[in-house]
Amino acid sequence: MKAAFTVTAAELQRFIADMLAAVGLPAGDAAGVAELMAQADLTGADGHGVFRLPQYLRRIRAGGLNVTPNIRAERETSASAVIDGDNGMGHLVMRRATELAIEKARAHGIGWVGAHHSNHAGPAALYADLAADAGLVGIYLAVGSANHMAPWGSIEPLLSTNPIAIAVPGRRHGTVLLDMATTVAAYGKVKLAAQRGQAMPEGWMIDSQGQPLTDPARAKEGTLLPIGGYKGYGLSLMIGLLAGTLNGAAMGSQVVDFNADDTTLTNTGHTIAVLDPAAFCDADAFRDEVDRIVDELQAAARLPGVDRIRVPGEGRTETRRERAASGIPLPAELRSTLDRLAAELGVPPLAGQGC
Amino acid sequence: MKAAFTVTAAELQRFIADMLAAVGLPAGDAAGVAELMAQADLTGADGHGVFRLPQYLRRIRAGGLNVTPNIRAERETSASAVIDGDNGMGHLVMRRATELAIEKARAHGIGWVGAHHSNHAGPAALYADLAADAGLVGIYLAVGSANHMAPWGSIEPLLSTNPIAIAVPGRRHGTVLLDMATTVAAYGKVKLAAQRGQAMPEGWMIDSQGQPLTDPARAKEGTLLPIGGYKGYGLSLMIGLLAGTLNGAAMGSQVVDFNADDTTLTNTGHTIAVLDPAAFCDADAFRDEVDRIVDELQAAARLPGVDRIRVPGEGRTETRRERAASGIPLPAELRSTLDRLAAELGVPPLAGQGC
Repeated sequence: MKAAFTVTAAELQRFIADMLAAVGLPAGDAAGVAELMAQADLTGADGHGVFRLPQYLRRIRAGGLNVTPNIRAERETSASAVIDGDNGMGHLVMRRATELAIEKARAHGIGWVGAHHSNHAGPAALYADLAADAGLVGIYLAVGSANHMAPWGSIEPLLSTNPIAIAVPGRRHGTVLLDMATTVAAYGKVKLAAQRGQAMPEGWMIDSQGQPLTDPARAKEGTLLPIGGYKGYGLSLMIGLLAGTLNGAAMGSQVVDFNADDTTLTNTGHTIAVLDPAAFCDADAFRDEVDRIVDELQAAARLPGVDRIRVPGEGRTETRRERAASGIPLPAELRSTLDRLAAELGVPPLAGQGC
Repeated sequence: MKAAFTVTAAELQRFIADMLAAVGLPAGDAAGVAELMAQADLTGADGHGVFRLPQYLRRIRAGGLNVTPNIRAERETSASAVIDGDNGMGHLVMRRATELAIEKARAHGIGWVGAHHSNHAGPAALYADLAADAGLVGIYLAVGSANHMAPWGSIEPLLSTNPIAIAVPGRRHGTVLLDMATTVAAYGKVKLAAQRGQAMPEGWMIDSQGQPLTDPARAKEGTLLPIGGYKGYGLSLMIGLLAGTLNGAAMGSQVVDFNADDTTLTNTGHTIAVLDPAAFCDADAFRDEVDRIVDELQAAARLPGVDRIRVPGEGRTETRRERAASGIPLPAELRSTLDRLAAELGVPPLAGQGC
């Protein structure tokens, strides 16, 4: 078997920045987006990093995204704000929102910042983790960029996978970080199964008769199932109301299918909330307590056949370590798409190892 | 079949207040707790209203709860606070926390108020709904009052059913309100099945070998399953870190089994966050948008055999309407326990209809 093609995070970041600059993003903005997108790949969010670049480029070239947005706080209090993303790249909007929320949290214990007229911003974990890197607690909510889930009992996709990420900084154990879609499987996993020609497990999707749908090629006929049945439906709805409706962003039938439509304004909504532990307890003792709980979970008695108890965020940390050492693997199909686009845009192709 | 015994909410409230006053709560506090507890029963939270009274009384009489607490804000910013509940009734602590969060939200867009040294406070919905009644968005998180869930892959109960409630006020449709445990079934449902001698469905619990456990009499040998497998485990953990650890409250192995232990300080943690829609968007338009989304959900195409699409909170609203008209039904076993306790404490028994 041939070694997979791998790139370094630095080279991936260089490539993404060059490509975005080639379609009109100012150099600083292109670099900012590229840094976050490369982080997504470095930490294993394979469906939310460079995998999305062809789609971003298509939308930008179709005029569906503003490459020179005026991103600004539209309403603001000492502890809250709503950002108008002016239809810019979601990464830029949410980086700004997160920086503002961190500033407010440091000054007032909490910063709750929403955004509208934004776009797809990559994995939820990125923004919650920016808060944790600053020693704070981060909570990120978003309306997903396409409706793939029906209300419980329905087959009509009126909801998205609306994700939530929560990051809590520990000490020895690093950050405990949950990043989850409210569906059993994220839609990216369905796309991945389709790309690989693999059947999906029962429980991911149902068809219009409510029967299990396992052929990813038929995904358009079906709907993703929520976690915990009606509970996950409820959670997706409430996240949509908080991250979409409350921020004046699209929700329900207003959500544009970002995968299929390159020109309609998406008006994507997100929220980042940041909390300063020092406003609630002794901030040092807090980190030790988080460690104590992780210790307890890891040492918990295991079911037969289970080799270890995992804590949310562990896999992400391990992947980051592995990929920082051995590079980020890129599937052949994605690489050839990126090579073709690079040639079109006159950008040096991704340089890496393996084939 | 004989008609079930039913009481009015007013009579239930009178009874609970008398009982709590009889064990030492000041009259005003007893009435305050009774109002919230009767609301729980009126709105169908049967496992979290008067059903809990015998247990509360037992703990109070055992000296495990402070009937004259000094409930006060311990740390406070313009938008956040932590309340020290001084081991008082959780209802009093969380009513105070919610009032403070509402005040802060009105002044600063958001109020995020945590509590420690609190106790069981009834259903999560109560406090989120207080915010919605004030025209605001409410989010409630709590560490459950006993550990019944193991980390994913384990059998050791280090986590509770840690619930979340989110309430969003609409207009015509009233409040959209999600109140869910992060386990497939709340532990109250297990107790109810045991009381009724019914088997539990597969998927609620597993035993120490990871096999489905369906006999509620064996519940102590097993662990509740989280919604969505590892996702619900992660969600329960993060809610615990936010509502417990961040507030300086018990979490993990520190959580006292409130059902089995009447004297050890529980140090229960909760959080209420309140958001003022006016800080984020046009508050009137917001309510109309919530209605539009509910309209869309209710009109969504249905799967075969589904008669209607439900929206979170609908069942609660219907139950409130029904019970306000026809009374709150009380199971015979609970009624006889309450009658016995009333006689002991010299309180007039619950007066109602039916037998």
